[in-house]
Amino acid sequence: MQLKDIQGERDLRKISLDKVGVKNLNIPVVLMDKERGEQHSIASVNLSVSLPHEFRGTHMSRFIEILENYHDEKISPKTLKNIAQDLCEKLNASKAFISFKFKYFIRKAAPVSKLESFINYDAGYEADLDLNSNKFDTVTSIIVPVQTLCPCSKEISAYGAHNQRALIDLKIRAKSLVWFEELIAMAESSGSSPLYTLLKRPDEKFVTEHAYNNPRFVEDTARELALKLDADARIIWYEINITSCESIHNHDAFAEITRNKLN
Amino acid sequence: MQLKDIQGERDLRKISLDKVGVKNLNIPVVLMDKERGEQHSIASVNLSVSLPHEFRGTHMSRFIEILENYHDEKISPKTLKNIAQDLCEKLNASKAFISFKFKYFIRKAAPVSKLESFINYDAGYEADLDLNSNKFDTVTSIIVPVQTLCPCSKEISAYGAHNQRALIDLKIRAKSLVWFEELIAMAESSGSSPLYTLLKRPDEKFVTEHAYNNPRFVEDTARELALKLDADARIIWYEINITSCESIHNHDAFAEITRNKLN
Amino acid sequence: MQLKDIQGERDLRKISLDKVGVKNLNIPVVLMDKERGEQHSIASVNLSVSLPHEFRGTHMSRFIEILENYHDEKISPKTLKNIAQDLCEKLNASKAFISFKFKYFIRKAAPVSKLESFINYDAGYEADLDLNSNKFDTVTSIIVPVQTLCPCSKEISAYGAHNQRALIDLKIRAKSLVWFEELIAMAESSGSSPLYTLLKRPDEKFVTEHAYNNPRFVEDTARELALKLDADARIIWYEINITSCESIHNHDAFAEITRNKLN
Amino acid sequence: MQLKDIQGERDLRKISLDKVGVKNLNIPVVLMDKERGEQHSIASVNLSVSLPHEFRGTHMSRFIEILENYHDEKISPKTLKNIAQDLCEKLNASKAFISFKFKYFIRKAAPVSKLESFINYDAGYEADLDLNSNKFDTVTSIIVPVQTLCPCSKEISAYGAHNQRALIDLKIRAKSLVWFEELIAMAESSGSSPLYTLLKRPDEKFVTEHAYNNPRFVEDTARELALKLDADARIIWYEINITSCESIHNHDAFAEITRNKLN
Repeated sequence: MQLKDIQGERDLRKISLDKVGVKNLNIPVVLMDKERGEQHSIASVNLSVSLPHEFRGTHMSRFIEILENYHDEKISPKTLKNIAQDLCEKLNASKAFISFKFKYFIRKAAPVSKLESFINYDAGYEADLDLNSNKFDTVTSIIVPVQTLCPCSKEISAYGAHNQRALIDLKIRAKSLVWFEELIAMAESSGSSPLYTLLKRPDEKFVTEHAYNNPRFVEDTARELALKLDADARIIWYEINITSCESIHNHDAFAEITRNKLN
Repeated sequence: MQLKDIQGERDLRKISLDKVGVKNLNIPVVLMDKERGEQHSIASVNLSVSLPHEFRGTHMSRFIEILENYHDEKISPKTLKNIAQDLCEKLNASKAFISFKFKYFIRKAAPVSKLESFINYDAGYEADLDLNSNKFDTVTSIIVPVQTLCPCSKEISAYGAHNQRALIDLKIRAKSLVWFEELIAMAESSGSSPLYTLLKRPDEKFVTEHAYNNPRFVEDTARELALKLDADARIIWYEINITSCESIHNHDAFAEITRNKLN
Repeated sequence: MQLKDIQGERDLRKISLDKVGVKNLNIPVVLMDKERGEQHSIASVNLSVSLPHEFRGTHMSRFIEILENYHDEKISPKTLKNIAQDLCEKLNASKAFISFKFKYFIRKAAPVSKLESFINYDAGYEADLDLNSNKFDTVTSIIVPVQTLCPCSKEISAYGAHNQRALIDLKIRAKSLVWFEELIAMAESSGSSPLYTLLKRPDEKFVTEHAYNNPRFVEDTARELALKLDADARIIWYEINITSCESIHNHDAFAEITRNKLN
Repeated sequence: MQLKDIQGERDLRKISLDKVGVKNLNIPVVLMDKERGEQHSIASVNLSVSLPHEFRGTHMSRFIEILENYHDEKISPKTLKNIAQDLCEKLNASKAFISFKFKYFIRKAAPVSKLESFINYDAGYEADLDLNSNKFDTVTSIIVPVQTLCPCSKEISAYGAHNQRALIDLKIRAKSLVWFEELIAMAESSGSSPLYTLLKRPDEKFVTEHAYNNPRFVEDTARELALKLDADARIIWYEINITSCESIHNHDAFAEITRNKLN
């Protein structure tokens, strides 16, 4: 029996859709890893295409079929371009949009004991392909938790200073590959101290004193990171959004900068 | 003792910040209510200002002081403008950004029994004031859950059709007041059926048959809503983002349209 | 037309259900407030009953109808008892279970400037009615965020000490009313410092130094709070679960104590 | 320099703690996989021990060191026992508590086309070791999403029936290994239909009609699953908690059963 293709029906409402697709789809992935060659992770994936006004719907199952074709390949901007091209072709679309979000792990050594442990970062890629303009655009993102120690609290207090975990949400566009490890290094050196999973007492002493010696407002952290991103010629656009989970308040402080170096 | 103003220090990094402020701050609020005059709710608030490159930091406590001044006033776009003006003035900033997110309740009657109950929607306002251009911009948002019943599933199956809760995330800019109740009505009539908190058996029969008689893809729902927003002369810009929690999948389907009528 | 009552059908599987009902239902509520008499909030409500093996299902709409009857009443353990009795009666059940979770606001003065602002706590009630044993049991809960400053970090470091926001999740059973304000006071004095929404510079100096003078491990905080709960004759059972969002790690530390004083 | 061991100090408050440890720690893991031998995933881990009243604190870094020792081993109840023994030994504790939560993937074939795709489940293990009683207890958990189609809606309506995604949260204790795949099969056959990631039109027709032919209340789903768990001699205890995201409401329905077969 031939089952009718309702999605393929002609639509008369004259309204084209920017994006139609699937969302919040979890799959196992293999990622490029600067130190270890590759690493296993799990991605939450969104895939969509533009839909011209004359078609009633897209064919949702084809998104899954295309994604299945890539499950043995390492996920990178290049792979995303191939997926985007397949989406445009198999769904007769001129634009495709892809988002992968995943945890990225690195082995990090404690600052004094040098003991190693895993630490994880929420990272991702977004990619857009536009066949009309023949443009392929990718955004690389990573959320780097750091410690921020308040310069005002340090200055005005006889001893101590409030400090807390802050999340640096960084997105970049680049002319050539920038490793997650490089972005992490830039972000971690912009707060008062990096975070570690495993710290022995001499490490904890080091981290405590290092943070006290490097007090940073959320504004300072944003600017320190901006200086590093400005100085890296590969990076052509960035967006910094920092949220500091203030240890003296039940709300957060935040700072944002977006910069397009090509403007 | 005079405590030093570290935030007020001169900054030499030559990097201005787009936004600096406080985030995820919960306060009780009173909202305008079309039917009942006003309603009590709780808002999660973000407040921020632009920071010129020459200042090291903003004064976070002033955001709270300004907000406290408004806790007896009804929250509306007009109130947000007053808050934004206060932020610019008290923080010596040229731009202020405000976001309020809250639950908005309406009394809804069941379709047949006419029994009434509360149903809630996640709603909000965003407002930006720019003193340089003397522009004040507001976005009104509401997330309206509806039922969507799949036209393909209905067409190809001998009986039944999969259906599910879908979330219509709608944002608008308007020339004059558009009530949340009006946006809810437009969104709810764009899916296969509105949702209800209280349904007796005759109501459940009505809703089931009504949805079966009005099958709607996520694409259809987006377009039906776009038609209504296009037809409303007060609305000058809108963004529709619909997520359908597919009852046959463990992932979601989605559709997006953004339209600026002034272009 | 008479619509068939499928839920009322006889069930032959011989399996009784502990709880059947509705969940994640949001409604506006009015709460008892120690200082201001009452306060408006929003509750997320779960209502359920036991279901004997011989009935196929419960009647979900009756939960909503019962709840609607109480929307002008202040929510307190006493109101919950009335709701539980109605649930048992209208649903022919011997047991009823109720959970209300809501934000509870207090006005809090800064420690030095005495400036007041709102601060919110996630609070709730759970109530169980068992008609067989004629027992009515209530649990009062509140999550109190505090600052914890690490005694080890302070001791081993030449200066500074890492500190962070920690969440004290406290549940109690009591012989007589214990106000949320009383539980908050016990919890806030058990960490290194309470949190505040509005702090001017002299306040921030006070909080910083106070926390530094009162270093507390998550273990210390749990024990300090346990001592206070042990000393309060009204409280007959408690559960403390503290999560400290360590500012030097990307994971949390936690401590738990449950104690039944009647044993 | 010898840094003082503050955690090892004598505590005079006479309050022992049930659990002290680390929480929300993410690590890459390798899991046992019934079909493929093993699979890579990411776990969120909690590790804790009991703390006698005379010690001020536990040594948080040792939890991480112990966990690091196991990062090349497959995670199973047996591995958890080894970790628990290490925790008791290295932390001088009589009780250890472990929780691992992770996504578990299976390859699932569509019902008609037999096309395969990944589908994921939230799964986990909890394990407690008590050296005093020499008892080691493990709980295996999995959350299985299914479709539920309302028998009442089907019965009273001329056509159609509301249906939705429901989450079956299942925990078991067993005398011998029960694979996640076995628990998934029991749960998926207890609702109106399993979910699939990839469905072509003939599959969608099958799933739609199959669900319509198998209407199940949340109560039915709980009882159908209980019957299967009762019949499996390996399983000695279970807890079922089902949440159905009702497509006609903006709240959920739920049902719970806990049964200890040894009682």
